[in-house]
Amino acid sequence: MRAAIFRDGGLVVDTMDVPEPGDGQVLVKTLACGICGSDLHALHHAQHMVDVAERTGSKSFKMDLKRDIVFGHEFCAEILDHGPGTQKTLKAGTRVCSMPLALNATGIEPVGYSNNLPGGYAENMVLNEMLLLEVPNGLPTEQAALTEPMAVGWHAVQKANLTKEDVPLVIGCGPVGLAVIAGLKIAGAGPIIAADFSPKRRKFAEMMGADIVLDPAETSPYKRWTEEAAPEGYDPDSMMTLLGLGPQLRPGVIFECVGVPGIIQQMLEGAPKAARIIVVGVCMEKDHIEPIFAINKELNLQFVLGYTPDEFAQSLHHLAEGKIEGEALVTGKVGVEGVEQAFKDLASPDVHAKILVEPWR
Amino acid sequence: MRAAIFRDGGLVVDTMDVPEPGDGQVLVKTLACGICGSDLHALHHAQHMVDVAERTGSKSFKMDLKRDIVFGHEFCAEILDHGPGTQKTLKAGTRVCSMPLALNATGIEPVGYSNNLPGGYAENMVLNEMLLLEVPNGLPTEQAALTEPMAVGWHAVQKANLTKEDVPLVIGCGPVGLAVIAGLKIAGAGPIIAADFSPKRRKFAEMMGADIVLDPAETSPYKRWTEEAAPEGYDPDSMMTLLGLGPQLRPGVIFECVGVPGIIQQMLEGAPKAARIIVVGVCMEKDHIEPIFAINKELNLQFVLGYTPDEFAQSLHHLAEGKIEGEALVTGKVGVEGVEQAFKDLASPDVHAKILVEPWR
Repeated sequence: MRAAIFRDGGLVVDTMDVPEPGDGQVLVKTLACGICGSDLHALHHAQHMVDVAERTGSKSFKMDLKRDIVFGHEFCAEILDHGPGTQKTLKAGTRVCSMPLALNATGIEPVGYSNNLPGGYAENMVLNEMLLLEVPNGLPTEQAALTEPMAVGWHAVQKANLTKEDVPLVIGCGPVGLAVIAGLKIAGAGPIIAADFSPKRRKFAEMMGADIVLDPAETSPYKRWTEEAAPEGYDPDSMMTLLGLGPQLRPGVIFECVGVPGIIQQMLEGAPKAARIIVVGVCMEKDHIEPIFAINKELNLQFVLGYTPDEFAQSLHHLAEGKIEGEALVTGKVGVEGVEQAFKDLASPDVHAKILVEPWR
Repeated sequence: MRAAIFRDGGLVVDTMDVPEPGDGQVLVKTLACGICGSDLHALHHAQHMVDVAERTGSKSFKMDLKRDIVFGHEFCAEILDHGPGTQKTLKAGTRVCSMPLALNATGIEPVGYSNNLPGGYAENMVLNEMLLLEVPNGLPTEQAALTEPMAVGWHAVQKANLTKEDVPLVIGCGPVGLAVIAGLKIAGAGPIIAADFSPKRRKFAEMMGADIVLDPAETSPYKRWTEEAAPEGYDPDSMMTLLGLGPQLRPGVIFECVGVPGIIQQMLEGAPKAARIIVVGVCMEKDHIEPIFAINKELNLQFVLGYTPDEFAQSLHHLAEGKIEGEALVTGKVGVEGVEQAFKDLASPDVHAKILVEPWR
């Protein structure tokens, strides 16, 4: 099969053996697979990712970088063949989504960050039958492929334990921020305030359901948040407010969707008192914070990762039910030959939201 | 009146004017006032504290370091006289505790970190009548003076939203850690695991109710925690555990009671999955973290500060009802002349828990 392969620190197009489904696994044809920010990071900092995984005690995230790896974990696929010990509830030809992981005798292994399990930048993959979800009739493949990134946002929103009073603020409107906005909209939160320096991303944020979208170069997101969160008659300097007796700001829940050093501290400085900060962006570098800002405001930081099987399934259904404007997010499609250029294009925030790889092209 | 005064960056004993109670205020005689770690910090880093307060937007914490300041915010006092506009519900001679702050026309001002409101290292203070709590009959003055530091621990325990399943771990057994242990004991949490390098502090931790006390130089607190949190038949490497189907560790709630750079990162590395970290220690320096550790384990960080009026009152009653072994914590008493030496003595963790200043001596 043909694949865009991560080899010797770069991306090459080559052929490789079609993987063989093991016990309880199925062989699939990759129909579409999104390129994720983590893949961009992995291309340039693979060794660092492996080191960090080892230091954080991750048992599943192990890659030998001297051997081939095929990235790609945001996919929609079609069942081709069933391996031994499968139930065959879903027949060959069925379109499916799956959490990008496989279970085997040694534990959990991620599809797309593995020497054994090629990801969706290859024509074929093997997936665990028990994790397969049938794509509902009528949902286009390219939208089904958004299930995984949308599940990341939906999970973050679940971890925020939203109340009706919360006023959410989303910092960063790349794919992660957009998924969070979509999740907030589905959860009925609002007004949703979103901030990004890129005009294109702000446009996407609006499409995904943000009520107020701003450019942090022009308007402080935190100041704008305060305006929205202030009830009638709110006076930050009055004695009644200080004593907690007068009208108070609505609670703040702020989503960190940038993932670079310095952002968390910026949030500690900008956040209102008692705010919850949901850290969805994945910063793999050392970062600086000044804890006293968080202490003086009694902030809460909830770091989040991934999603539960339920949340993954719910995201597929959100897309199928038209609750997410998925179509607009797909801004490009490439074959395996186009992957390398697509990675370059995605480095600029002003062109693309999501590029899909279609390895069968 | 005589006082230990913070002047020109050092502590001096001098006389100063007795403060005059304003509207709604009372004049009190300081009976006993604990020395807090924040006071030690203020002695050496006052300008930094003022700068940080300004940067964090604190409206109440403003000091002109060129003018005299009297520290001391953990006090028990006796009413001497009532100012204008007071209710006089509590008569002169009544022993009282109070949250260390005063309300005036411009807002809230802290007693003990103010140019206008001398703290408990002076013979007299002015306090707001509406904040006074009568010391229950029979509670010794020196234990009543522990109300404030105990309220800090009690508040931290409240912010942890404990469940019966939680296994708490307290890192650092200085006065803050000891107050947290006392709070955990009252809340019925357990087993309470506590860690400190100092043998003396470990002894105090036992006295306050810790069930398991360890020296981190010999035993990893996190490893010990895991042993306690593991139910029968728990196997960290089994497939069932990885899938969340087999027996799981009890939830972890870890109290950071050290407050120096590096500790939070140590916790991010050591904490079990999904742990809540309650940051009670006050680190005023820049700190390093690696967010990926918190992300991979979906950790939650709750930063806490101070206490509510209810929690303050509850702490006084905990002491009065004998729920806290307060007596053992008072390891020294000094007059105003002894304050400077007491600050030096407190720098070593192996002698004292709490030194009280008795300015009337």
